Amino acid sequence: MKKEFKVIFKPDNKTVKVERGTTVLDAATSSDIYIDSICGGRGKCGKCKVLIEGRVECDETDLLTDEEKAHGYFLACLARVTGNLKVTIPKESRVESHQILMKSVIAPLPAICPPVSKVQISLTPPSLADYVSDLDRVTHALRNPDMGHVTIGLPTLKNLSKVLRDNQWNVNVTLMDLWDRKEIIDVGPPSDNDLIGIAVDIGTTTIVVELVDLTSGKVIDARSDYNKQVVYGEDVLSRVMYTEEHEDGLQKLTSTIRYGINDLVRELVIENNMKYEKICRAVLSGNTVMMHLFYGLDPKYIRHEPYIPVMTFVPQMKAVKLGLSVNPNAYIYTLPCRSSYVGGDVTADIIASGMSDIKDTSLLIDVGTNGEVVLGNDTFLVSCSCSAGPAFEGGEVEFGVRAMNGAIERVWINNGLTEYSTIGDAKAKGVCGSGLIELIAELFSSNVIDRTGKIQKDENNVRIELGSNGNQFVVAFKEDTAIDKNIVITDVDIQNILRTKAAVYASCSVVLKTFGYQFSDLSNIFIAGSFGNYLDVKKAITIGLLPDLPLDKFKFIGNGALGGARMVLLSQDLQDKAAEVVGNMTHIELSVSSMFFKEFTSALFIPHTELDQFPNVSKRGYV
Amino acid sequence: MKKEFKVIFKPDNKTVKVERGTTVLDAATSSDIYIDSICGGRGKCGKCKVLIEGRVECDETDLLTDEEKAHGYFLACLARVTGNLKVTIPKESRVESHQILMKSVIAPLPAICPPVSKVQISLTPPSLADYVSDLDRVTHALRNPDMGHVTIGLPTLKNLSKVLRDNQWNVNVTLMDLWDRKEIIDVGPPSDNDLIGIAVDIGTTTIVVELVDLTSGKVIDARSDYNKQVVYGEDVLSRVMYTEEHEDGLQKLTSTIRYGINDLVRELVIENNMKYEKICRAVLSGNTVMMHLFYGLDPKYIRHEPYIPVMTFVPQMKAVKLGLSVNPNAYIYTLPCRSSYVGGDVTADIIASGMSDIKDTSLLIDVGTNGEVVLGNDTFLVSCSCSAGPAFEGGEVEFGVRAMNGAIERVWINNGLTEYSTIGDAKAKGVCGSGLIELIAELFSSNVIDRTGKIQKDENNVRIELGSNGNQFVVAFKEDTAIDKNIVITDVDIQNILRTKAAVYASCSVVLKTFGYQFSDLSNIFIAGSFGNYLDVKKAITIGLLPDLPLDKFKFIGNGALGGARMVLLSQDLQDKAAEVVGNMTHIELSVSSMFFKEFTSALFIPHTELDQFPNVSKRGYV
Repeated sequence: MKKEFKVIFKPDNKTVKVERGTTVLDAATSSDIYIDSICGGRGKCGKCKVLIEGRVECDETDLLTDEEKAHGYFLACLARVTGNLKVTIPKESRVESHQILMKSVIAPLPAICPPVSKVQISLTPPSLADYVSDLDRVTHALRNPDMGHVTIGLPTLKNLSKVLRDNQWNVNVTLMDLWDRKEIIDVGPPSDNDLIGIAVDIGTTTIVVELVDLTSGKVIDARSDYNKQVVYGEDVLSRVMYTEEHEDGLQKLTSTIRYGINDLVRELVIENNMKYEKICRAVLSGNTVMMHLFYGLDPKYIRHEPYIPVMTFVPQMKAVKLGLSVNPNAYIYTLPCRSSYVGGDVTADIIASGMSDIKDTSLLIDVGTNGEVVLGNDTFLVSCSCSAGPAFEGGEVEFGVRAMNGAIERVWINNGLTEYSTIGDAKAKGVCGSGLIELIAELFSSNVIDRTGKIQKDENNVRIELGSNGNQFVVAFKEDTAIDKNIVITDVDIQNILRTKAAVYASCSVVLKTFGYQFSDLSNIFIAGSFGNYLDVKKAITIGLLPDLPLDKFKFIGNGALGGARMVLLSQDLQDKAAEVVGNMTHIELSVSSMFFKEFTSALFIPHTELDQFPNVSKRGYV
Repeated sequence: MKKEFKVIFKPDNKTVKVERGTTVLDAATSSDIYIDSICGGRGKCGKCKVLIEGRVECDETDLLTDEEKAHGYFLACLARVTGNLKVTIPKESRVESHQILMKSVIAPLPAICPPVSKVQISLTPPSLADYVSDLDRVTHALRNPDMGHVTIGLPTLKNLSKVLRDNQWNVNVTLMDLWDRKEIIDVGPPSDNDLIGIAVDIGTTTIVVELVDLTSGKVIDARSDYNKQVVYGEDVLSRVMYTEEHEDGLQKLTSTIRYGINDLVRELVIENNMKYEKICRAVLSGNTVMMHLFYGLDPKYIRHEPYIPVMTFVPQMKAVKLGLSVNPNAYIYTLPCRSSYVGGDVTADIIASGMSDIKDTSLLIDVGTNGEVVLGNDTFLVSCSCSAGPAFEGGEVEFGVRAMNGAIERVWINNGLTEYSTIGDAKAKGVCGSGLIELIAELFSSNVIDRTGKIQKDENNVRIELGSNGNQFVVAFKEDTAIDKNIVITDVDIQNILRTKAAVYASCSVVLKTFGYQFSDLSNIFIAGSFGNYLDVKKAITIGLLPDLPLDKFKFIGNGALGGARMVLLSQDLQDKAAEVVGNMTHIELSVSSMFFKEFTSALFIPHTELDQFPNVSKRGYV
């Protein structure tokens, strides 16, 4: 075991034990103290200056003066713990919670209370005098005032007799609570104690699967990949069209999505040395079209006026019916949808934000392939949706990638010098959503692009070149990338990004105006989206994606579709809440709103046609 | 259309309209008036003498005197209606309900109330202002105070949108009542009005399927066949052994039983010009081993002390899970079992007899491959079971057949003259259960066999010959059969039949004695079994299968396993009753009873070792 040391942070007086060699920056983060570090802890920005008493090892840096060094200042990202320390964080080095770089945080879980549970039972073996059936012996043992009616499915029943005898009548029973009854979904040896589930986000562009411990609530591991349905169409409508035009189209799209999930589950179980049968619960979220495709329901009528889905909610059913590689008896729950274009992903966002439990009014913005906006509080909810495009999810941008290892997630341009950091500090593979927001904001702030997003010719800038799609800006040179090519952003890419941000901003404006609200009336703005691990709110305001409001009003919930699914996975109460949320939510249809087109057109500029809506975005960027 | 005439029966004053050419005997039977006709309406016994006023056509007969003919007497079986008639039935020609030949009659159905129903709905088509999902549109239309919670399965949901639009939003919805909710199991055109179900008896030897109209309660058609599992073993224990000794044994037995049912269903739907999907409910009965094999549950532990079944009841589940060729969403219910050897077939018998609603004490005897006996009334029930053998179901007897067309069902030997009648008046193919009872009784009464069942050599009797299994008696000569062989009964056959009847009678004796009852304490003796259409109680007493009690105490319920299944198919109340019956029934285990072997041995004689138990069976047959 590595040696551990104690680090005390001042003025917080928080103490943390860390292993030898941990950076002081990581030690701070692990105790929920946020030190400014815009370079992502790479020793390049010099923002994480701290005063250290005690023994550290530290690389050389020019970002501290000799005087600072003499006084005991270090860069927290370079200083490695080699003894017990006292660390004082100067005010200027501290990130207040409302400031700039937001890590995603979802609403706290009221309590861990999943509908699955394990009960250990010890049975008296049968005899000529006590000859009830094996099943009755088990259900009698389970019977108590809380348990109610107990049933069992055929596959579990088929194994029951053998498992009972193989384990000398001492077994662990996995029970699924189905409001009117409990179902025995698994019977295993007494050692089989852990309770595992998966939370799944079926995005139009990306699928994410999280392996979750249903006892502790901890995420054991997670995997994500592109939704391979993209080969049948980039957005939901083109995929619906594919099902209409090809006889086996629906079947193909359904198996693609199921295989996609199963591939990730396989990686997770192999990597975590687990059996599929261990996974005894799954909660999925996704937009309405994805839900139709997942279940194999014809989405045809969603595409045509009056845009009618087959269903908005499917009662939970067993994995075996849906071809999911988990315990075949596990019940699969998908978050309910509100309408054809406000799906279970939005329901999950609402759960993840907690906005339906807050008295003050909040706005929720989900920037996915479709953009969805929800306005409301604990007494009302109203939703709308727009076709935003997958620009922030790695689509429609030549070198766009999802938030994966090697994705450029942060970018800064200072005095003509372009720097970036990648997820996992890997060689760059492309730019993910958060990277694109920063990139556009930085290009704008440093005059590389104008207010319409056009790249300005500049022969002195080696990064600006002419490509097949007009001008382009080199973010990372070939020799620094993992893909053996320059990573560039083109004029066409930027127009796609601006259309996405304009659609999102316009949707917000229309919902607020329709219900007589102004941005300033809002107490919280929850932002959801698979941008990456962080969102730089100032830069998102700079490009006009988010409204220009006090920074402390913004809360980044990250992939809320996944976070909400995980919360529902862990709590039957939240599963009930999800149904309630959908039942109470009003929906407005932007496609028939004349206001929307006007708002959209105005929002295509950086930050916006009406600059007075963005007082804090001075001529060039938020200051 | 054939011309109809009115027939008034005196002294009953019952009137019936029949088609020209109907026999007076059939006209009487159709109005529930039973005229004696031991030859089965073939003009041979002369018992059905009636006085007719009006116009009939009639074949010549020597069985009436000239004086009788002059007075207007006819044989009811030969007289065909050709005008309006008044028919007076003399007392001597009448069959009182307690007399001799009993047609099977089961308890009356309290009310037709199956758990499936059809509701016709007319929906307002969706619009931009009314954009709820197709499913919600349907469930909202169904919602009323009685309806409760409504759900739908995935296969039905997959068709919903198309069916709604194809039928201009006017559809017929089939609903299944699942106590806590109703499930939409089918949606069809508004013309699709009828509600069809099947009742299935999975016997060890025979499978019977009835197609039933769930609105009228009428049996539309029925088919039966041998249970093809016999190739894996004649009785249940040998089949269980087969599953133990062959890796794929269980799977084979399960598919054999399912295919067997599906074959009969296919015949029924083709013959009745119907689609499989029309069949939206199925109720099955069978013994505990058959139920295990049907569900694919390992029956191994049933065979070994302490004889534990995996289950005694499986919650109803969808046809698609069980591979039945009916509507895949139809819920399949199997009657609950009491123990390893008192199965759902006995539960069905009890329902069919109605004995659990009768204040006075009854005895129920089911003569199947296993014999089961139930003693009880509306306050208690006790059951036991014995291995009877399939002698009365066409097994273990060389020319034994199930009750099918061409089966010899009645036999009489008078003055050395042997006559018989077959089901459907077809050429003889073999002897069914009722025929065997009559055959043994007649052979005994006419001294062809002695009290031990041995055929007596008699050179004057051309029907007695020496075969490979000892002596044998020719029932039907080759030229009169459909199988181009003499139909014979051998010494070995008779011993098998006697073992069966002895096991049944001994079981009755043991149950009664164990609970301090005597045969004379009983108010009803219900007899179940697939003997044939009729049971001649006198002859069953003659051979000692049934106790020697006043004839009016006997009620023949025929195939009660099927009759009970049909009643439960038609009534949710009786489905609930079945669970209650099983819950309240005590079980005694004969295999550990020392009394049983003694009783069995005494009962191997005709009628019994202790002749004083059979006062009405004089030296040779009941008189």
